[in-house]
Amino acid sequence: MTTARTIRVGLEERAYDILIGRNLLERAGQEIAARMPGARAAIITDANVAALHLATIEESLKAAGIQGTAIRVPAGEQSKSFPVLETVVDAILAARLERRDVVIALGGGVVGDLSGFAAGIVRRGMDFVQVPTTLLAQVDSSVGGKTGINTAHGKNLVGVFHQPKLVLADTGVLDTLPPREFRAGYAETVKYGLIDRPEFFAWLEANWQEVFAGGEAREHAIAEACRAKADVVARDERESGDRALLNLGHTFGHALEAATGYDSSRLVHGEGVAIGMALAHRFSARLNLASPDDYQRVEAHLRAVGLPTKLSDIPGGLPGADRLLEYIAQDKKVSRGALTFILTRGIGQSFIAKDVPASEVLAFLEDSLKQ
Amino acid sequence: MTTARTIRVGLEERAYDILIGRNLLERAGQEIAARMPGARAAIITDANVAALHLATIEESLKAAGIQGTAIRVPAGEQSKSFPVLETVVDAILAARLERRDVVIALGGGVVGDLSGFAAGIVRRGMDFVQVPTTLLAQVDSSVGGKTGINTAHGKNLVGVFHQPKLVLADTGVLDTLPPREFRAGYAETVKYGLIDRPEFFAWLEANWQEVFAGGEAREHAIAEACRAKADVVARDERESGDRALLNLGHTFGHALEAATGYDSSRLVHGEGVAIGMALAHRFSARLNLASPDDYQRVEAHLRAVGLPTKLSDIPGGLPGADRLLEYIAQDKKVSRGALTFILTRGIGQSFIAKDVPASEVLAFLEDSLKQ
Ligand SMILES: NC(=O)c1ccc[n+]([C@@H]2O[C@H](COP(=O)([O-])OP(=O)(O)OC[C@H]3O[C@@H](n4cnc5c(N)ncnc54)[C@H](O)[C@@H]3O)[C@@H](O)[C@H]2O)c1
Ligand SMILES: NC(=O)c1ccc[n+]([C@@H]2O[C@H](COP(=O)([O-])OP(=O)(O)OC[C@H]3O[C@@H](n4cnc5c(N)ncnc54)[C@H](O)[C@@H]3O)[C@@H](O)[C@H]2O)c1
Ligand SMILES: [Zn+2]
Ligand SMILES: [Zn+2]
Repeated sequence: MTTARTIRVGLEERAYDILIGRNLLERAGQEIAARMPGARAAIITDANVAALHLATIEESLKAAGIQGTAIRVPAGEQSKSFPVLETVVDAILAARLERRDVVIALGGGVVGDLSGFAAGIVRRGMDFVQVPTTLLAQVDSSVGGKTGINTAHGKNLVGVFHQPKLVLADTGVLDTLPPREFRAGYAETVKYGLIDRPEFFAWLEANWQEVFAGGEAREHAIAEACRAKADVVARDERESGDRALLNLGHTFGHALEAATGYDSSRLVHGEGVAIGMALAHRFSARLNLASPDDYQRVEAHLRAVGLPTKLSDIPGGLPGADRLLEYIAQDKKVSRGALTFILTRGIGQSFIAKDVPASEVLAFLEDSLKQ
Repeated sequence: MTTARTIRVGLEERAYDILIGRNLLERAGQEIAARMPGARAAIITDANVAALHLATIEESLKAAGIQGTAIRVPAGEQSKSFPVLETVVDAILAARLERRDVVIALGGGVVGDLSGFAAGIVRRGMDFVQVPTTLLAQVDSSVGGKTGINTAHGKNLVGVFHQPKLVLADTGVLDTLPPREFRAGYAETVKYGLIDRPEFFAWLEANWQEVFAGGEAREHAIAEACRAKADVVARDERESGDRALLNLGHTFGHALEAATGYDSSRLVHGEGVAIGMALAHRFSARLNLASPDDYQRVEAHLRAVGLPTKLSDIPGGLPGADRLLEYIAQDKKVSRGALTFILTRGIGQSFIAKDVPASEVLAFLEDSLKQ
């Protein structure tokens, strides 16, 4: 018998539990059967995860009397597309699932975003369970109900808000995750400390090695991150205000992902976020909002775990500052030369800054490219 | 200056107005600008409607200072598909519309269902305005927030609930509608009387000719229908109960549409519903739930306006009763040989019957095929 930590996402009639602990895959069947009696299931997963973890959850469903159909998609960001969405939707319908049956996402953020979208539109909304298998998905993408796919016009531009009924974060499945993917997810974990939980950031500085090693500290870190995300989501489900704080490091990060052509051999999302968070803290110091001590502390921690913090850490060269600024302006509305950024007054004191002059950003990028 | 009737759909923070009257197309710009200041617009329409009515609404938007982009799709049910959805989504993004800009559906139920779905998923939900141009769309599909497309597995199986911010039902645009399409929409109008508004059914019996001719009576009929639909939607937005009453005539109707291969030269949706309503009343009499007088009165009225009421009214022949029953069972869950139907105890006394034995349906269909 394993015990799991439980975090409740408080969204009234859409409220749900996040369970965090080892061996939850083995318990998936009973947890789902208890909450969705009589439901049949479609398990969406990618090729990598299927090879490692699909059999475990299939057995667990079977033991709980849940009829399950596995639907495989190729691993990688390219699966967040209209053609793959249509394939998944068709496979769910071919399995003759009804509105009260359940779609299970077994995988990282890609599988989660794609399956959640499919669950949100088949029969105008089916029940949905997240079983995140990357650290990024456990601390971020599986919680909060944002789902979606990419188009030629940009990432995540098409999707729905569709909250899961349950999130099962099995911390043991992260043992098979490539170290680089683990580090990328760790960057998003650090983010919550930097937004508004300075003690959590300090705790990570002291305990990160045990988080990487597994066990108790890992579960604690994931639970803290989920609690932080759940708080923000409960306050602002549809991102009309506060939820934008979760974009700390992401404005720079997204621009870098675009500038490297979303080539994951050069930069994965979490690495972009790590550099983005370092830049946001440096930029805040430059604008005299925060002390240089803060950005030094942030960079030191990110580097300690092996994450990049500088533009020059990205292999293969970057375009000039003007072009980077264009990437930044692309997915934001630039109103009269001003940009919205998440900036900070110190560790755990982030805020939404709506009138950052584009000229300041440009000058800062020029200097950053030299570092 | 024209006056319009206003009906409010009471859905709390998602509440909206339905305006009904002549010349509303000319007023679209000012009505939208008043409710969504600063929004830019994408107008989705089909080739037939574009030729007749697009210029009018474009001029009206322009006069109100609203920047608009027209997006055309082919006319017909085949546009409710994944490929056309992707085209529309891409065109909305290419026009660089943001979350608070607006998608306008100018057309019948096909354009409304498709555009509403696109509006519901671009940037996880954009504002949406319905400008229904068929009678069916004005009395039914434009109100209530159901959107969606078809797949090989069936009609309307993929979509979202996404309420419009405003519905503009210009009763004058119906003057260009082919008479057969007008009659089809009239069947759905009659439906509201048969569900729970016996006085409305009696009023239609007395005034249908003026409804067809246009003017005051047409506006009254559309307003009554919208009020009826708005009531049901406000009570049960996501069809977990009561809203199923709106399916009166549709279980038989959908089976007939499927049995004729969705060939609109043989049967359009509203004609299927007309036959379906007649059959539902006959079947109720056969089950001793209602008096034969009722089905005779229903059939007499539908025939008076030129709608079909019998299986033999469909040109080209039908499959046997077993096959029809299979079509009926296909989109319903058949639990232990029982089916859910909307049946009636008399004009305006419809109810949801959950345990209709499949054997009774089969015997009834066999007899109906002989008539
Ligand atoms: N919805 C949200 O709120 C939200 C938030 C953040 C990120 N995202 C999205 O998440 C996606 C990134 O997610 P990700 O980083 O998890 O990427 P991913 O899903 O592509 O997973 C990364 C890689 O790890 C593999 N993998 C997954 N679990 C594994 C395991 N246990 N063992 C071994 N290999 C495993 C996958 O097959 C893949 O190759 C992006 O598309 C991003 O837009 C969404
Ligand atoms: N969302 C809902 O709640 C709901 C309810 C009922 C029906 N529907 C859907 O509605 C669709 C049927 O809608 P419909 O009957 O309006 O079909 P439609 O949209 O195909 O329109 C019928 C025909 O009339 C033409 N047309 C439209 N307006 C015209 C005008 N003013 N003048 C001349 N021609 C015009 C169209 O180009 C088309 O050829 C179906 O797909 C059905 O599933 C949805
Ligand atoms: Zn992120
Ligand atoms: Zn209908």
